[in-house]
Amino acid sequence: MSGNTFGHILQLTTFGESHGPAIGGILAGLPSGMVIRQDKVQEELNRRRPGQSIITTERKEEDKVQFLSGIFEEKSTGAPIGFMIHNKDHQSKDYDQLQHIFRPSHADYTYQTKYGNRDHRGSGRASARETANWVVAGAIAKQFLAIQSISIYAYVSQVANIKTSKKPNELDLSTIDHSMVRCPDKEVSDQMIALITSAKEEGDSLGGIITCIIQNVPVGLGEPVFNKLHADLGHAMLSINAVKGFEYGLGFDEVTKKGSEVNDEFYEKDGKVFTKTNYSGGIQGGISNGMNIEFRIAFKPISTIKKTQRTLSTDHDSILFEAEGRHDPCVLPRAVPIVEAMAALVIADHSLMNRNSQL
Amino acid sequence: MSGNTFGHILQLTTFGESHGPAIGGILAGLPSGMVIRQDKVQEELNRRRPGQSIITTERKEEDKVQFLSGIFEEKSTGAPIGFMIHNKDHQSKDYDQLQHIFRPSHADYTYQTKYGNRDHRGSGRASARETANWVVAGAIAKQFLAIQSISIYAYVSQVANIKTSKKPNELDLSTIDHSMVRCPDKEVSDQMIALITSAKEEGDSLGGIITCIIQNVPVGLGEPVFNKLHADLGHAMLSINAVKGFEYGLGFDEVTKKGSEVNDEFYEKDGKVFTKTNYSGGIQGGISNGMNIEFRIAFKPISTIKKTQRTLSTDHDSILFEAEGRHDPCVLPRAVPIVEAMAALVIADHSLMNRNSQL
Amino acid sequence: MSGNTFGHILQLTTFGESHGPAIGGILAGLPSGMVIRQDKVQEELNRRRPGQSIITTERKEEDKVQFLSGIFEEKSTGAPIGFMIHNKDHQSKDYDQLQHIFRPSHADYTYQTKYGNRDHRGSGRASARETANWVVAGAIAKQFLAIQSISIYAYVSQVANIKTSKKPNELDLSTIDHSMVRCPDKEVSDQMIALITSAKEEGDSLGGIITCIIQNVPVGLGEPVFNKLHADLGHAMLSINAVKGFEYGLGFDEVTKKGSEVNDEFYEKDGKVFTKTNYSGGIQGGISNGMNIEFRIAFKPISTIKKTQRTLSTDHDSILFEAEGRHDPCVLPRAVPIVEAMAALVIADHSLMNRNSQL
Amino acid sequence: MSGNTFGHILQLTTFGESHGPAIGGILAGLPSGMVIRQDKVQEELNRRRPGQSIITTERKEEDKVQFLSGIFEEKSTGAPIGFMIHNKDHQSKDYDQLQHIFRPSHADYTYQTKYGNRDHRGSGRASARETANWVVAGAIAKQFLAIQSISIYAYVSQVANIKTSKKPNELDLSTIDHSMVRCPDKEVSDQMIALITSAKEEGDSLGGIITCIIQNVPVGLGEPVFNKLHADLGHAMLSINAVKGFEYGLGFDEVTKKGSEVNDEFYEKDGKVFTKTNYSGGIQGGISNGMNIEFRIAFKPISTIKKTQRTLSTDHDSILFEAEGRHDPCVLPRAVPIVEAMAALVIADHSLMNRNSQL
Repeated sequence: MSGNTFGHILQLTTFGESHGPAIGGILAGLPSGMVIRQDKVQEELNRRRPGQSIITTERKEEDKVQFLSGIFEEKSTGAPIGFMIHNKDHQSKDYDQLQHIFRPSHADYTYQTKYGNRDHRGSGRASARETANWVVAGAIAKQFLAIQSISIYAYVSQVANIKTSKKPNELDLSTIDHSMVRCPDKEVSDQMIALITSAKEEGDSLGGIITCIIQNVPVGLGEPVFNKLHADLGHAMLSINAVKGFEYGLGFDEVTKKGSEVNDEFYEKDGKVFTKTNYSGGIQGGISNGMNIEFRIAFKPISTIKKTQRTLSTDHDSILFEAEGRHDPCVLPRAVPIVEAMAALVIADHSLMNRNSQL
Repeated sequence: MSGNTFGHILQLTTFGESHGPAIGGILAGLPSGMVIRQDKVQEELNRRRPGQSIITTERKEEDKVQFLSGIFEEKSTGAPIGFMIHNKDHQSKDYDQLQHIFRPSHADYTYQTKYGNRDHRGSGRASARETANWVVAGAIAKQFLAIQSISIYAYVSQVANIKTSKKPNELDLSTIDHSMVRCPDKEVSDQMIALITSAKEEGDSLGGIITCIIQNVPVGLGEPVFNKLHADLGHAMLSINAVKGFEYGLGFDEVTKKGSEVNDEFYEKDGKVFTKTNYSGGIQGGISNGMNIEFRIAFKPISTIKKTQRTLSTDHDSILFEAEGRHDPCVLPRAVPIVEAMAALVIADHSLMNRNSQL
Repeated sequence: MSGNTFGHILQLTTFGESHGPAIGGILAGLPSGMVIRQDKVQEELNRRRPGQSIITTERKEEDKVQFLSGIFEEKSTGAPIGFMIHNKDHQSKDYDQLQHIFRPSHADYTYQTKYGNRDHRGSGRASARETANWVVAGAIAKQFLAIQSISIYAYVSQVANIKTSKKPNELDLSTIDHSMVRCPDKEVSDQMIALITSAKEEGDSLGGIITCIIQNVPVGLGEPVFNKLHADLGHAMLSINAVKGFEYGLGFDEVTKKGSEVNDEFYEKDGKVFTKTNYSGGIQGGISNGMNIEFRIAFKPISTIKKTQRTLSTDHDSILFEAEGRHDPCVLPRAVPIVEAMAALVIADHSLMNRNSQL
Repeated sequence: MSGNTFGHILQLTTFGESHGPAIGGILAGLPSGMVIRQDKVQEELNRRRPGQSIITTERKEEDKVQFLSGIFEEKSTGAPIGFMIHNKDHQSKDYDQLQHIFRPSHADYTYQTKYGNRDHRGSGRASARETANWVVAGAIAKQFLAIQSISIYAYVSQVANIKTSKKPNELDLSTIDHSMVRCPDKEVSDQMIALITSAKEEGDSLGGIITCIIQNVPVGLGEPVFNKLHADLGHAMLSINAVKGFEYGLGFDEVTKKGSEVNDEFYEKDGKVFTKTNYSGGIQGGISNGMNIEFRIAFKPISTIKKTQRTLSTDHDSILFEAEGRHDPCVLPRAVPIVEAMAALVIADHSLMNRNSQL
């Protein structure tokens, strides 16, 4: 209700600001009896961790997750899984300058006005640090989905104007993490890295697009009319910091097509139903149709830049401001595991909801 | 939980298939004491009604809403508002051909597989007729917002490749309904109408984009981290039939910009805070910042076309299929009031949630 | 959220005041493929109907339920089931006297203060007429439970000081409806009827206790820690008009016992686990243990009596008041199907929730 | 959904087993700007702490709460409040005997069957240790209510057959904690202590009744029809371990009265409305009427006793069992702060919901 819980049956509730003692969450609704590999959860956190490469922020955070409940002898018990991640790298002095400033295109002004007070250190609750919680929960959801052979792959398909022209099925998705920028198109990846490096030197920031592919989803996930699968996926993706748009299947490109051009023709092979094309992005009428689910997410260049900008103080004085501290010039490489985590939570949740669709 | 309720405090729960005796809903959570103009609700329904112009389906449905509870002496009582719309124009024979067919890019196959059985007449629950319920509830939400001087304007900004090059603030939004296609750019509107007429003759369908502007939203609406205002708006829009994408502010176009180009500079005028640009689309950190909220929604060309297509029967036989009946060649003109209705429900709901943000 | 929806997966949302055109509801979350016998739903409504015997109100209401959606060829489709019951017997003039009065121990004063305005005709939303909606939904839930051989029996075990001394297992529960007062202990039933008849002549009202037995519940229903099975049952029962208390198993009588006297000893027979006694009332740790679920509900004598009472007008003047109209001297006989309906909704809901307890 | 969240707007989600590293929770939905006195939270925890007197368990747990988020400079920020309590006194060997036993009237058998596996140490999630989380959240809710001058007093009114004959208004509620057993009737308190001491020596356990009084509740709290104030209070109380019954106002005693005897007569004094009697227990039609809210809760004698009992092993062998370890002979003294905490959560939640009842 207050915006701190995600999901219907599999529910993640989170807490934490970037500069308190810890962040954490409670994942409730996971069936009992599932083996939980904590090392694999930590691996996903490591993929999101700051300081992992030369193109991310240099902040160092260990981001070690600690599980507090709900797991007994390495299996889920059906009880809620409590977890926390200690905040390690407090350089609160970096944030002293922020106490009396509304940073441009940040959440300072809106939080201050909505809540009347505000933890100004490191964006408080608005910090993307919160997404580490999502990665923990999503990593568990991924393990749940793996039992059903469902795989989720997100990758950076565009940074600023540099984009891969290859379609998902032309890429080797197993190589995503071979690239520092998490783009499995080697040549494009190199160009992206060069561009990000240059932006970092300038003190500026870059946006881009992440593409996500979900393979082997069974037919039937999605709860029309208000929890259509793509609506819940869109909701999840639009919850990620810096996201400005979501499209699935052919998306915005479909608006210029005629119906006769983009209807997906059904056919049968070995007793199973397929479509020849997949303009629908694996979802029809809000329900998965067994084809790959495909969607794309637009990320803006983040607001924090090392350039002088004019803005207002909290007293409404016009002032000049230049961000200090260490920030990502482009958040997309680190956003890849976040996208996968949120997608995993949605699909796992719908998988559980779908247990009640038939008698 | 089963996908039939929308909203957190202001909650719409709906029922109904296109070919049952009626559709309807329950709007709960509206504060008491609000004057409800039932004639204005009917006006909104009329904007959505089929058969309203030569570019929409010729089906005739009166779509007369009947209120059953929650209103006493023309005011809300705080009790849930029950309403229904009788289904009038049953030409079920139009749908006999559908009983044994999975129409391409329709929900026939996914519903059949998910639920095991299916009301094949007129798409059952997957029919866009359901959105008439949303328009009723949204019309009440609009009246709630009008008390706070909040206005919502949606219009068709693009049909296929024809689009207005004017920005929202260059258009006279009060003239939207002067255009049969609901595009307030007269010249472009005429071109759109010509194109839709031509597609209708061909038996094909067209997609497009609806732009929505919400004016005078107070600062502070939105519940981070999982009910950010734009995430709830996106969820609402992605729930509308045929929608394939959602973006707010600069949206997908922002991915090619640098942070220094798209940060919105704060300034003060007459004691109020504004931003010089509005790339953020009126929402920062998931919370409204007082500027106009702006978003865009991509609609695909609808699947029902009067052209021969290959598909599967419910027995998985490959067959040829051509839709009969009367359908919209382009749903966008009639989708405008639906977009406004869903936007109104989201903003009204967040307005109520925000009553609890401070002590 | 606003108190108009009951249940977690199987959700009933209702609307309606006693003197509007209709009451009704939406039952969402029922799995598809279930045969729904509408005649059996009507039978349950008939058990609740006013005017059914000389000891109930003489008001006549046909209480004919009409289904509007969610059922196709007599089976559930997985879509929400909309239904309504027209209000027939409007004698609004009976209620004219109520417009300016706060009736003692009624909801007039609290509704007026909470909502600022109020539909004074027949108690508006606070009318027990609302419970007809619950009986409709509960009758469907009963059919869902019958598939699993789960049976629910409620009966009147006490009216004022007259009570049966027999335990549930000493009674023939199939004979409950043979008694006008719905007490299966023939001798006690006769005494109850005599007492109620006498109270009716006096213009006074009587309270009592309803006992409910649920047979054949599988082990495992209940969602600790906040949706324990008995907590959800208690919530459901305390929602019924005029209910003042709820206890399960030995209930309040257990407070005077020692642990050594009331622990239920486990034993095994034919590979199944039983307890020798059932002081636990079929629920341990908030989860059903396979024994009969047993609980008791205290009903107060209803507030509407044909005796002169002192009270306040809506202007706070001290006035004398005597109820007109036709009211039940004792609501318990008609409350029996309501208790069964709410119990059925809870057990069916938990049965669906429990599908997700294990991998 | 999975039973780990309580409340509608003010929502507590919890995690933790008695023998994991910690228990804890997330309290979301508290408005920003409220001063939170952490010392007062700890005081409430101390009232619940084991080992506090000779009549409670001798287990020693420090039960020190640590806040992790949502509080900045001693005020709520509107962000969720994360907290945890480390588990200190692990004597897991006490529980080794429990691994292969279904203790009589415990949750061992039902948890094992529902979830398929089980943390057998100290009852896992079914342990009353969980209620420490509730006391933390409830202590914050109490501070929220104190701003509105709402006070909550619970006390032990009966242990086994020993009960106070005094009504709440004849007792000095400020002296509750002067009594080791938390009964403010000195003479009766002494008798209770003697009885509990004797039961402890026997190795047996005792039940009893806790009475709760809530003073100064404004008119209007409660959300009919499914979240009536007393239904939500009943739900809360029935969630507490060992509770077997709930009644409010005159409760079960009201069933033997006539309507003419128990209708509460309204009168006015100094412009405010009161009732001469309060058989309604401060709630009419599910909404608070401004009089004291009064309810009573039945606790069974807890199942853990140091007497030999026959039961089943997890392999269904009939065995003899005698509990080891240190347990409360009577849980009521320590349950008093738990009752107050849950009552505070309900009243605070309804106070927030009621902000939306009028325009």
